[in-house]
This record gives sequence, C-alpha cells and structure tokens, in this order.
Amino acid sequence: MSRIIGDMPAYTYGTASVGASPVTLEELEQLKVSVGFTADDERYLRRAGEVLEGQTQTIVAHWRSGIIASIPNLARHSRTPEGEPLPKYLAQSNLRFEQWILDTCLRPYDRDWLNYQQEIALRHTSVKKNQADGVVSTPYVPFRDIVAFTAVLNATIKPYLANGGDPSEEIDAMHRAWCRSLQLQIALWSRLYMDLARTKNEW
Amino acid sequence: MSRIIGDMPAYTYGTASVGASPVTLEELEQLKVSVGFTADDERYLRRAGEVLEGQTQTIVAHWRSGIIASIPNLARHSRTPEGEPLPKYLAQSNLRFEQWILDTCLRPYDRDWLNYQQEIALRHTSVKKNQADGVVSTPYVPFRDIVAFTAVLNATIKPYLANGGDPSEEIDAMHRAWCRSLQLQIALWSRLYMDLARTKNEW
Repeated sequence: MSRIIGDMPAYTYGTASVGASPVTLEELEQLKVSVGFTADDERYLRRAGEVLEGQTQTIVAHWRSGIIASIPNLARHSRTPEGEPLPKYLAQSNLRFEQWILDTCLRPYDRDWLNYQQEIALRHTSVKKNQADGVVSTPYVPFRDIVAFTAVLNATIKPYLANGGDPSEEIDAMHRAWCRSLQLQIALWSRLYMDLARTKNEW
Repeated sequence: MSRIIGDMPAYTYGTASVGASPVTLEELEQLKVSVGFTADDERYLRRAGEVLEGQTQTIVAHWRSGIIASIPNLARHSRTPEGEPLPKYLAQSNLRFEQWILDTCLRPYDRDWLNYQQEIALRHTSVKKNQADGVVSTPYVPFRDIVAFTAVLNATIKPYLANGGDPSEEIDAMHRAWCRSLQLQIALWSRLYMDLARTKNEW
C-alpha cells in the first residue's frame, strides 16, 4: 500500500537505523480511540493518498513557499542562524515532507510507523535537528509552532483532497480522517518534547 | 461581547484569583500567525458564538454523554478513582465546558484570556485538578488525551455551526476559525505541561 516518491536522503522509514518509540502499541490504540480514529478513517485516508499522490510537490510548495516563507518565525528553521537560505536542506526536507503526506495516508499505523513518528519528532528537536542533512540551522523547532501550524496544514489540504472528484460528503470524511491523524501525530510527538523538557524545554 | 451562561461555581475569568500566564502577548501574536489566525477568524468566531449560544447545553451533553462516557480512558477523569460517578463535579464542569465554548468564540484574545488559558490548563494537571470542585478524582488529564480529543471537538462542532442557516462557505470559514482557535489553545496549554515535565511528566 505504501508508495515512495523517489530517492530521498535520510528517509529511513522501517530501517534498523530508526530507534524504538517509547510509546506502546496499547497507548497508540487508546489514542486512536480518544481521537475518534476508526477503520473508516483508515479507508478514507487510503483514498486521500490516491488523490494526493500526484499533488504532493504542489502541496509542499504551497506550504513552504506560499506560507512558511512569509512567516519569519517559521522560515528560520530552514535557514542558517544568520538567516541565509540553505537550498539543499530545503530541497531534501521538502522531499521528506512530501513523503510524509503519503505515509500519513497510506502506511499502516503499526510499530514501524510509531517508531518513525518518534524519529520525525527527534528531527524537530535539538536531539537530531540538522543532523540528517548535515547543516547548521536553528537548533530546534519549538513544539508550540508545530501544534499551531497543524491548523494551517489541515485548512490548506482540503482543496487538494477535493481534486479527486469525490462526492462532497466523501471529501469531508477524508478531511476528518486527515485531521484525526495529524492530531494523533501531534500527541505522539508531544511525548518526546515532554521527555526532553525534563532538562531542556523546547516549547 | 462576552456572554455568561449563568451562575457557575469556580468560573473565575478575569478575576484577581487567576494567576498570570507565563506566555507573553508577543508570543501569543506569533502563535496567531503560525496558526493562520486573522481578523477574519475573529469575525467568524463572533458569528459562531451567536450560532452556538443557544446550543451549548446540547453540545456539551453530546461530548460528555454521547462520546466521553463510552471511552473509559477519558470518562475516568470525571469519576472517583474507583470509577464511581461524581454527578456534582460533572454538572459543574459541564457548565464551565459550555462557557468555554462561548469564551472561545466571543472573548477577545487578550491578557485576561491568556491568563485564563493557563488557569484551565492548570485545572487539567495535578497542580489544580479537582480543587475547584473539591472532589477526589484522577490526579490529572494526560496531555496526549487533550490533544487527541481536540479532533473530536473539531469534527463534532461542525453540524452545530451549521444550525444558524449561514451559507456553506461561511460555515466552513466559521469552522476553520474554530479549529485554529483550538490549536492555538492546545499550543498555550502545552507550555504548562512542558514546564511541569521538568519534575512530573503528565504526557
């Protein structure tokens, strides 16, 4: 079911280099219940993945160039500490951003997925940010900005979900499934930020 | 602009008993930008408040009796540690839950609002949960469940927003404004949970 968009530096999903998430599969199941995520949502996400597959480049360009680039507070995380562009870093992380869209829609939410959630979270904190691409940029993305920007991802994905020509109720259902998944992912990522906050608060 | 639904125990909005939030107004403004919250959203939330005002009791009953009550992992936070009902606690916190809907829509997001966000967050952690109502229940609501359940609040509010008979594009805009506000609130609440995680992780 999964699809890989192409050759991506540092995309390590399902490989031995990805460490274990401290979250248990039981906790994941409980979170799915709290978020209202059911087998229907899985099915709608599969359809969303089909619809979005040919649009990921456009969507990520929309997010990065159309929105993030004009918000200095967010754009700085893909730049040098002096604010200079890092085109290679941006290009590589954009490819992984595209793949994340597909993984959100098409991957089974199993142990590999859970572990990679932790890996993605690590790459937003001072534990691992910049390492995968060997760059010098901001040391971490504050957790609050990840939470906040999720609202933008949710609001802007909808028209792309509609491009498959599905009936409007189905598009709404695909969108609800997407929003549920993102909230689930934020809940998982928050585990790392809170563990880290014991010594280093990256709120 | 604000409206109070009635006499509510421990609703202390804007009073001297509410402590200061550690979040600055500048950080709040930055978060609004990250979440994509504009003056249009404020306007749509005002309209949402008008539409929801007569429905808050029904909505909270839907959330509490219709959803939370059937999820043991969430329902336990309004019960005794042994799982017995606490009807007075539930009734009082339901009234505040209703008022929170109105405050989300109708209050200006200023220093008082910011401080009360911190107060609400405190009442979900071991610092203050149960105190306002003088009950013995679970010591805290895990942060991950708040994040997760936000997806349910967002998905289920939509039909109520539609009950005002506004054009569907306006209902969509009201809903986007609501979702942005909730994400903003989660980002604010996360500050307390992360500060607290230095000594006590309530993920």
